[in-house]
Amino acid sequence: MLPHAADDISRDGKSLILAYDHGLEHGPVDFEPNPDTADPERIFELATHEAVTSLAVQKGLAEAYYPDYEDEVNLLLKLNGTSNLWRGEPNSAVNCTAEYAAELGADAVGFTVYGGSNHEVAMAEEFRDAQEGAREHDMAVVMWSYPRGQGLRNDASPDVISYGARLGLELGADVVKVKYPGSAEAMGDAVEMAGPADVVMSGGTMRDDEAFLRNVSNAIDAGATGIAVGRNVFQRDEPERILDALEAVIFQESDPAEALAVAESDD
Amino acid sequence: MLPHAADDISRDGKSLILAYDHGLEHGPVDFEPNPDTADPERIFELATHEAVTSLAVQKGLAEAYYPDYEDEVNLLLKLNGTSNLWRGEPNSAVNCTAEYAAELGADAVGFTVYGGSNHEVAMAEEFRDAQEGAREHDMAVVMWSYPRGQGLRNDASPDVISYGARLGLELGADVVKVKYPGSAEAMGDAVEMAGPADVVMSGGTMRDDEAFLRNVSNAIDAGATGIAVGRNVFQRDEPERILDALEAVIFQESDPAEALAVAESDD
Amino acid sequence: MLPHAADDISRDGKSLILAYDHGLEHGPVDFEPNPDTADPERIFELATHEAVTSLAVQKGLAEAYYPDYEDEVNLLLKLNGTSNLWRGEPNSAVNCTAEYAAELGADAVGFTVYGGSNHEVAMAEEFRDAQEGAREHDMAVVMWSYPRGQGLRNDASPDVISYGARLGLELGADVVKVKYPGSAEAMGDAVEMAGPADVVMSGGTMRDDEAFLRNVSNAIDAGATGIAVGRNVFQRDEPERILDALEAVIFQESDPAEALAVAESDD
Amino acid sequence: MLPHAADDISRDGKSLILAYDHGLEHGPVDFEPNPDTADPERIFELATHEAVTSLAVQKGLAEAYYPDYEDEVNLLLKLNGTSNLWRGEPNSAVNCTAEYAAELGADAVGFTVYGGSNHEVAMAEEFRDAQEGAREHDMAVVMWSYPRGQGLRNDASPDVISYGARLGLELGADVVKVKYPGSAEAMGDAVEMAGPADVVMSGGTMRDDEAFLRNVSNAIDAGATGIAVGRNVFQRDEPERILDALEAVIFQESDPAEALAVAESDD
Amino acid sequence: MLPHAADDISRDGKSLILAYDHGLEHGPVDFEPNPDTADPERIFELATHEAVTSLAVQKGLAEAYYPDYEDEVNLLLKLNGTSNLWRGEPNSAVNCTAEYAAELGADAVGFTVYGGSNHEVAMAEEFRDAQEGAREHDMAVVMWSYPRGQGLRNDASPDVISYGARLGLELGADVVKVKYPGSAEAMGDAVEMAGPADVVMSGGTMRDDEAFLRNVSNAIDAGATGIAVGRNVFQRDEPERILDALEAVIFQESDPAEALAVAESDD
Repeated sequence: MLPHAADDISRDGKSLILAYDHGLEHGPVDFEPNPDTADPERIFELATHEAVTSLAVQKGLAEAYYPDYEDEVNLLLKLNGTSNLWRGEPNSAVNCTAEYAAELGADAVGFTVYGGSNHEVAMAEEFRDAQEGAREHDMAVVMWSYPRGQGLRNDASPDVISYGARLGLELGADVVKVKYPGSAEAMGDAVEMAGPADVVMSGGTMRDDEAFLRNVSNAIDAGATGIAVGRNVFQRDEPERILDALEAVIFQESDPAEALAVAESDD
Repeated sequence: MLPHAADDISRDGKSLILAYDHGLEHGPVDFEPNPDTADPERIFELATHEAVTSLAVQKGLAEAYYPDYEDEVNLLLKLNGTSNLWRGEPNSAVNCTAEYAAELGADAVGFTVYGGSNHEVAMAEEFRDAQEGAREHDMAVVMWSYPRGQGLRNDASPDVISYGARLGLELGADVVKVKYPGSAEAMGDAVEMAGPADVVMSGGTMRDDEAFLRNVSNAIDAGATGIAVGRNVFQRDEPERILDALEAVIFQESDPAEALAVAESDD
Repeated sequence: MLPHAADDISRDGKSLILAYDHGLEHGPVDFEPNPDTADPERIFELATHEAVTSLAVQKGLAEAYYPDYEDEVNLLLKLNGTSNLWRGEPNSAVNCTAEYAAELGADAVGFTVYGGSNHEVAMAEEFRDAQEGAREHDMAVVMWSYPRGQGLRNDASPDVISYGARLGLELGADVVKVKYPGSAEAMGDAVEMAGPADVVMSGGTMRDDEAFLRNVSNAIDAGATGIAVGRNVFQRDEPERILDALEAVIFQESDPAEALAVAESDD
Repeated sequence: MLPHAADDISRDGKSLILAYDHGLEHGPVDFEPNPDTADPERIFELATHEAVTSLAVQKGLAEAYYPDYEDEVNLLLKLNGTSNLWRGEPNSAVNCTAEYAAELGADAVGFTVYGGSNHEVAMAEEFRDAQEGAREHDMAVVMWSYPRGQGLRNDASPDVISYGARLGLELGADVVKVKYPGSAEAMGDAVEMAGPADVVMSGGTMRDDEAFLRNVSNAIDAGATGIAVGRNVFQRDEPERILDALEAVIFQESDPAEALAVAESDD
Repeated sequence: MLPHAADDISRDGKSLILAYDHGLEHGPVDFEPNPDTADPERIFELATHEAVTSLAVQKGLAEAYYPDYEDEVNLLLKLNGTSNLWRGEPNSAVNCTAEYAAELGADAVGFTVYGGSNHEVAMAEEFRDAQEGAREHDMAVVMWSYPRGQGLRNDASPDVISYGARLGLELGADVVKVKYPGSAEAMGDAVEMAGPADVVMSGGTMRDDEAFLRNVSNAIDAGATGIAVGRNVFQRDEPERILDALEAVIFQESDPAEALAVAESDD
């Protein structure tokens, strides 16, 4: 963690990462609730929303679309990722080098580490190369810290999530993305463990507007600096409306109900 | 996917890749229906047919023949491939570096990724090296995206084929070669998932003229930009005739029956 | 082992390494006895205590805090380490290259080798790269030599600990950190086996003040040059007080009881 | 396969490779029939026979003897090889880099690929490095293409041997060494599959003079360009005599019986 | 094998390698018969005995002591080695690169290859890197050729030892260290198989003076150029006396009994 490294992908110390690597990680099924979001252009447009402080995509999408959006969007290039077509101990392929991410104009790199996997040691070493490569090119480093694997009984427990947050700090991430551990208190523990590294909660699977925003608000209250969100934005009928509301919750620390009301009145 | 990267191996946005790596992948048995096609020279000659926008071969054939054909043929060097003499989870050997492909004058590189294989992670990382190497030398990148492996029940289902098309886009291919998923509608889904990347259907095993051309026509109607074909050309008695017909179907979007009639009258 | 290589992280040939990689190796649970020690800043402050000759941390903490402490603290960058979330034969991930450690201003690098593990051969080769990299940048090399693994019946036996000390010497460590083998005599054997390399005992799990200091005193009497300690300092209510006592025991070779009395009177 | 690449190790398009890596592959037992052939000098002398167009040895022998023979002998450095002391799926160690072979003055490199082995993919990738390294130094590439392994029922069948010949062509060998498939017709098939790459038959285990020469003659008639032979030369009492006969059969396409008669009259 | 490469670690074509890597390979137990030999300085002093033509140690000892002995001792840096704390198929860690050995002033490098191990292929490839690295820096290459592993029934049979000697020659060693195969005749066979490479017998476990010297004398008579010896020197009460005797047996080819008598009268 380097002080100020994440400034390019945040605003006033807060961040909303629009994550869109689902085509690789989950496949077309994730686009079914809102079919036109299969088109990456729809998402790059969405990423120009002023709530969004960076857009996380794989290399292929960055190559195709980022040249047209580089003035309006901050690029968080997700360096590793894999399909869900295979079965086995959690692992991820490094699909892009830090060097190539820099060539594509990335402001930051993203990297998944599955602590607790039998592949943890190998993934941590791949993370090292990515992290040191990012430092050479002044890109921030965001770790998707998702403990899971054969040895872990409960990978959603607050303890495990806090441990994951700490892994991010120890290994040199500037921002650590963790699952919401179920309560503001537990989120506060995770934030404390990450020390000076930013903690963002992952949006996860689709939930109703208010429940979702309530979690985000709790996370912010607990010291999280923001959210990395995909499905909870693009699987909705009106992605812009939830971005309006997230902007209020994250950047103005509005109450979720109030934020929703304002967002609706904007329509 | 880089806009215009595939221009050198297409014409008016359409492409017919003549694929000829069967000597490696399947062995001499594939040449039995038309024995003189065991001679690569026969195929390089065929590749000068104006329907053909590129010829896909392994390194050894490119070394031996391409110097004599570089003015008339666009070279798509297939970087990986393996024999079918061994048994095991799908995998492929990287037989040529991107750097050497560039030295041989390649316009594009080809690379198989078996999504769903236990080797998917390793293959994706090999693809990364090939893809980034191709970018350094301004060569287009064509992914043979063929999900298969222990974890996959039905690797020919439309869902899996669409997922494979998306893998190509996400990982940075300019062109994605997928199996024909059985209907124009399913092909359309795959094309949509590939976004701006070109999708070409693979020719597959030999079928009768009209059934084959009907699939190609459906694929083109569904948005595919062409075909990568080997056996359905060189295992026929008159390969040039089917190329004539494919040219009509792909580039003039002729009706298959009509295209066949014209091709026959050309004889 | 290079003569004088460890001078930068010792004083008058003695050393007290404050070790703080528990957030990675054990997770948040190690901070529970003294919760504010979860904050790395608390530990960097502690490391400015004049008893401390170096602070051992992972890369992420060094990046975040060392720039503010480089005048007061000697940095021992621990290059490898892993979480305890996974199960399996002992192994460790190389999270930082020697080159990057040098960029961060490290005076020394630390590296764990689990002799006796099925991964011993691989870890020794990773140690080689770290050690030769450290030599290029004039950093001392500290080996955490902790034999353990499937093939070892009793990894805390004096024989095994002596063998571990020798591994450090043979493989090129300047300082070897070993477990306290239970007696001054056994510690003397380990020290003898390490030849000219410094031997420091590891602090291990928390014990009461006097028992702990007695072991340290015995180790010093037996020729050890110091201690590498984490939990036995930061899990106490008053970490500074035990540092005062350790300073007396290690650097003035005071009697433990006397050292404790003096430390208490300092309060 | 590069046109003319093999010119330095052939004469008038024909070649006789004297192979002498048996000390590594089989051990001292291969020298028992003719004990003084354990001395490499005896074989280097033999390689000055005008029938021999190159001598295939491992690195160690080339280092020791080639400086004294470089004017009279063409060196084919065998880059990989292994002992038969271990048991397991066929594999081979890369004992010499192409770069070092070039420093030793090699005219060509030799490389075994066991198609069908579970190690085929890895061996093909090692072959790639050897092949591309050879190209940088203008050395010819000879593949020992010997399909064998767990997945192969009958590795001496004509089909498998033809497939092996094709592997050589596809992967970029200039010369492919295959087993004699039992008949001139089958040899012709293998030659056809190798296209423009030269095919040489391997000498194999010792047989009587005429049976051996008959196979060679059949192979030449079928289009093979020569032979790579070890035991069938050096395990005989008078190796020079069989070289005389081979010269007649290969380069003058003499009848085997006639060639033998002439060779005997030369004594 | 390069002619004259081993000149720096021999005298008049003979050599006595004092081997001292037992602290790594066997641990402190090997020093028990003569405890002050745990101190490497004792051995470096011993290596100044005029009988000794080189001293074989691991990197750590060379770093610590060689600067003080470089005028009197020839350094044979043993590049690989491992502890006996783990169990498994024979293998060894590469603890030092050839480049670093050269920086330390080594005249030669030593490398163990366990022919017949399931790791033979990997070890041979590591040997390749060591050997080619040594050539770049004009250091001699000594192979510890010790066939052993799951596939080998009797690794001390004369046939296996001869095969091991040949492996050294084929793979490019200048000196091959083999076990004494039980008789002068069998040693002669091994020497013959090694061709121009020097063969030294390994001292092995401690035996009584005369039995030991008799084997050495037989080996020299059979063409061996010397011995690599550790325990049979340093586990004796008076290591210098056996060195006196070895000097007579190896360099003056004295009768063992006579050599012993002279050595005793020197006291």
